[in-house]
Amino acid sequence: MEYKKITEEDIRFIQNIVDKDRISQGISNLNLHSIDQSHHKPSLPELVIWPIKEEEVSGILKYANERFIPVTAWGAGTSLEGNSIPVDKGIVLDFSMMNRIIQIREEDFQADVQPGVIYQDLNHKLRYKGLFFPPDPGARASIGGMIANNASGIRSIRYGSTRENVLRLKVVLANGQIIELGKNTQKTSSGYDLLRLFIGSEGTLGIVVEATVRLRGIPEHFSACLVSFKDIYSASKAVFQIMRAGLEPVCLEIMDSNCIKVVNRINGLNLKHLHTLIIEFQGSSKEALKDSVDMCEQICKDLGYKEFIFGIERDDYKRIIDARHLLGESMRKYHPGRVHTVTDVAVPISRFPELILFAEKLTKNIKIPAYIFGHAGEGNLHLAFMVKEEDSEEWHLVDEIKDKVTDMAIKLGGTCTGEHGVGIGKRKYMEKEHGDSLFWMKKIKELFDPHGILNPGKIFP
Amino acid sequence: MEYKKITEEDIRFIQNIVDKDRISQGISNLNLHSIDQSHHKPSLPELVIWPIKEEEVSGILKYANERFIPVTAWGAGTSLEGNSIPVDKGIVLDFSMMNRIIQIREEDFQADVQPGVIYQDLNHKLRYKGLFFPPDPGARASIGGMIANNASGIRSIRYGSTRENVLRLKVVLANGQIIELGKNTQKTSSGYDLLRLFIGSEGTLGIVVEATVRLRGIPEHFSACLVSFKDIYSASKAVFQIMRAGLEPVCLEIMDSNCIKVVNRINGLNLKHLHTLIIEFQGSSKEALKDSVDMCEQICKDLGYKEFIFGIERDDYKRIIDARHLLGESMRKYHPGRVHTVTDVAVPISRFPELILFAEKLTKNIKIPAYIFGHAGEGNLHLAFMVKEEDSEEWHLVDEIKDKVTDMAIKLGGTCTGEHGVGIGKRKYMEKEHGDSLFWMKKIKELFDPHGILNPGKIFP
Repeated sequence: MEYKKITEEDIRFIQNIVDKDRISQGISNLNLHSIDQSHHKPSLPELVIWPIKEEEVSGILKYANERFIPVTAWGAGTSLEGNSIPVDKGIVLDFSMMNRIIQIREEDFQADVQPGVIYQDLNHKLRYKGLFFPPDPGARASIGGMIANNASGIRSIRYGSTRENVLRLKVVLANGQIIELGKNTQKTSSGYDLLRLFIGSEGTLGIVVEATVRLRGIPEHFSACLVSFKDIYSASKAVFQIMRAGLEPVCLEIMDSNCIKVVNRINGLNLKHLHTLIIEFQGSSKEALKDSVDMCEQICKDLGYKEFIFGIERDDYKRIIDARHLLGESMRKYHPGRVHTVTDVAVPISRFPELILFAEKLTKNIKIPAYIFGHAGEGNLHLAFMVKEEDSEEWHLVDEIKDKVTDMAIKLGGTCTGEHGVGIGKRKYMEKEHGDSLFWMKKIKELFDPHGILNPGKIFP
Repeated sequence: MEYKKITEEDIRFIQNIVDKDRISQGISNLNLHSIDQSHHKPSLPELVIWPIKEEEVSGILKYANERFIPVTAWGAGTSLEGNSIPVDKGIVLDFSMMNRIIQIREEDFQADVQPGVIYQDLNHKLRYKGLFFPPDPGARASIGGMIANNASGIRSIRYGSTRENVLRLKVVLANGQIIELGKNTQKTSSGYDLLRLFIGSEGTLGIVVEATVRLRGIPEHFSACLVSFKDIYSASKAVFQIMRAGLEPVCLEIMDSNCIKVVNRINGLNLKHLHTLIIEFQGSSKEALKDSVDMCEQICKDLGYKEFIFGIERDDYKRIIDARHLLGESMRKYHPGRVHTVTDVAVPISRFPELILFAEKLTKNIKIPAYIFGHAGEGNLHLAFMVKEEDSEEWHLVDEIKDKVTDMAIKLGGTCTGEHGVGIGKRKYMEKEHGDSLFWMKKIKELFDPHGILNPGKIFP
């Protein structure tokens, strides 16, 4: 498919759809929309547009579709695999001005939001109602972006990913048509599940202009623990045993000792410099929580923990979780002049210790700073590196290690991405992971976007 | 599309794929596969085949696709909207011989099963491991059939529908190709979610030959309550208030006083002849459960309950749940000579009382026995009638009421089917419910099944 460069005529046409002051060709705006939080190669769009209405999105897509102009949706730019980089240039639609919480329906545990709403802002607004939207990727992500990548984070172990927390979408298709997917009900068996098909499709099938999200009640009681181990393999075995025991934590994170060093220094924490699990239980009574914590301690003891801290206060726990969320940024501060790159894979929980051991062996003796962490309770591993930007040898080694870890994850029955999405970085694993079903994904792409204008260069190898 | 009648030549070809003794044209076998548990018009297939291997399914589909022969998959025949009736004749593939539990992976909370496995049989096998597969539609349904209809039942309020409890599928497409969808991981953001697209597609996109299902731990403690009310509107308001309070029951069923009459007589229960809620809480401690039950009682008291029974013993509770599961059969026994028909809709929980009231008004003064019940905690209403088979006036009235209730559910932001699927009976509501997105569902059907051989006459109007 040959894409067309944007002309003066195109811009004049678009100015009939969108106010002039919400269209920019300014280099600083193009720059701001050329790269997400990943290490992938930046690419400047030709035009940035800030829509405020679905009709504008529809008008722009209809026009772009006829003229073969690529259109990439932009949430908050916090993706980690180049998911929103406009690699084929064209238009970037920045949804930061469509950031209205349209309606909170407490009585149905639902909220209608525009895609530009930052999920923390929604939760901030909800907290006085005792409700929250569970997916919690950490970065200040937009809900539109979370839907695109099926984001999850530290609470998905209990509440599921974004896919399980969205009930209804309004999307604009490549041809400009606006359709609704899903229902405002907790269950439905009516027709094909187009809703889930679009969630996680990274803006390649259509662009979300409105979403109904599912809210949950904030549980009354919580209990947080920190457990430290001398070797990371034992820590990862504890993860498996905790899950196997059916303890159902709402958060079960792993951070290797390198991560701990960073959060101690940068975030002012004072944790033992060992491999650490962060574990949180929630419930409606303190007694129930005590049982879980006791059982959890017993498991960790049998595996030879060095320290088990429980009954962490809410404020202290918040500082730990905030530090966990800021891990990527803190690594950058800890290693000035180096570039952050991270990979994200997931395996069945019983294979998690094996994967951790494999990642540790590969990174143990290298000179590049490497960090092992992740949403361990779901078998979700993150492996981050801080690389010298101009050092091609370092990049080569890092790519090799990431390749090996991803291959191993797939070999263990896992997936090349648990939550960051495919974007640019994981395209090369799609064939290995999906085999013949990749062909059918392509067919679906062709069906909804025959001219290939929506976020080209993503997902497919 | 003109379907072809099955010829002697076709049968000879199929005999090369499947042993003779697993192919039947016998009238009693055709009869057995002409109707599910619904009131829809039976239709005889021309041929019934019992495959035992995926290669056989693949071979048959490939051949049928080339010859334009309809193929309808058959699980246990327990569907309620004609979902598995071979309306265009052709071949029925009966999966009752592909009923092997291939592997239980306790450590990953997963099991690999063939589609013919009856879910109760899986749960029976699992109970000594402290695990279970949560979707619980009641009838002795096959897991393949549950996947086809995205079945749910009394526990989906806590654990989700079948869609949320299947991780991976192996399916045979219309052209005979075998593909795998999903992963054995709890989360993935890798590519399009074809897995959920196929779940609930009622065998119209492909036929499941293997599934990896998600298992959960059986919670240690439970507490079951029965609450009775004089008017059903108050009972339904209690449902809403219990959900609104964030109490998170694992079961919240409503049965009107007519249902109670039936289960008392047919199942030997001795419940108060009033409108009744069945409520179950589960947890890891008795204290936590007590809190929930207390709060629940307070809510029901404020709404003027007549009786609140709690602390029901496990055996007694099992008898109640069994009776709830057998409700359809019991109605048949209670009204010999009449035909059972049921509709299934769901609305946002805050609109449930309104829907209940509407259904009650429509059925109050009619002479046809009518029953209001359902998975109330999810806003899921069932409305059943026992109709004189030959009485066209009765059928007319029943159809009219079902129409009105379904229209009202859609008007209240709901869906024409919460869990029974579209089948034949709900096709006429698809346009109203889905609007323009129905067109895209059709396009997806054409993509995967261009000759329209898979379960024709279903889902689409």
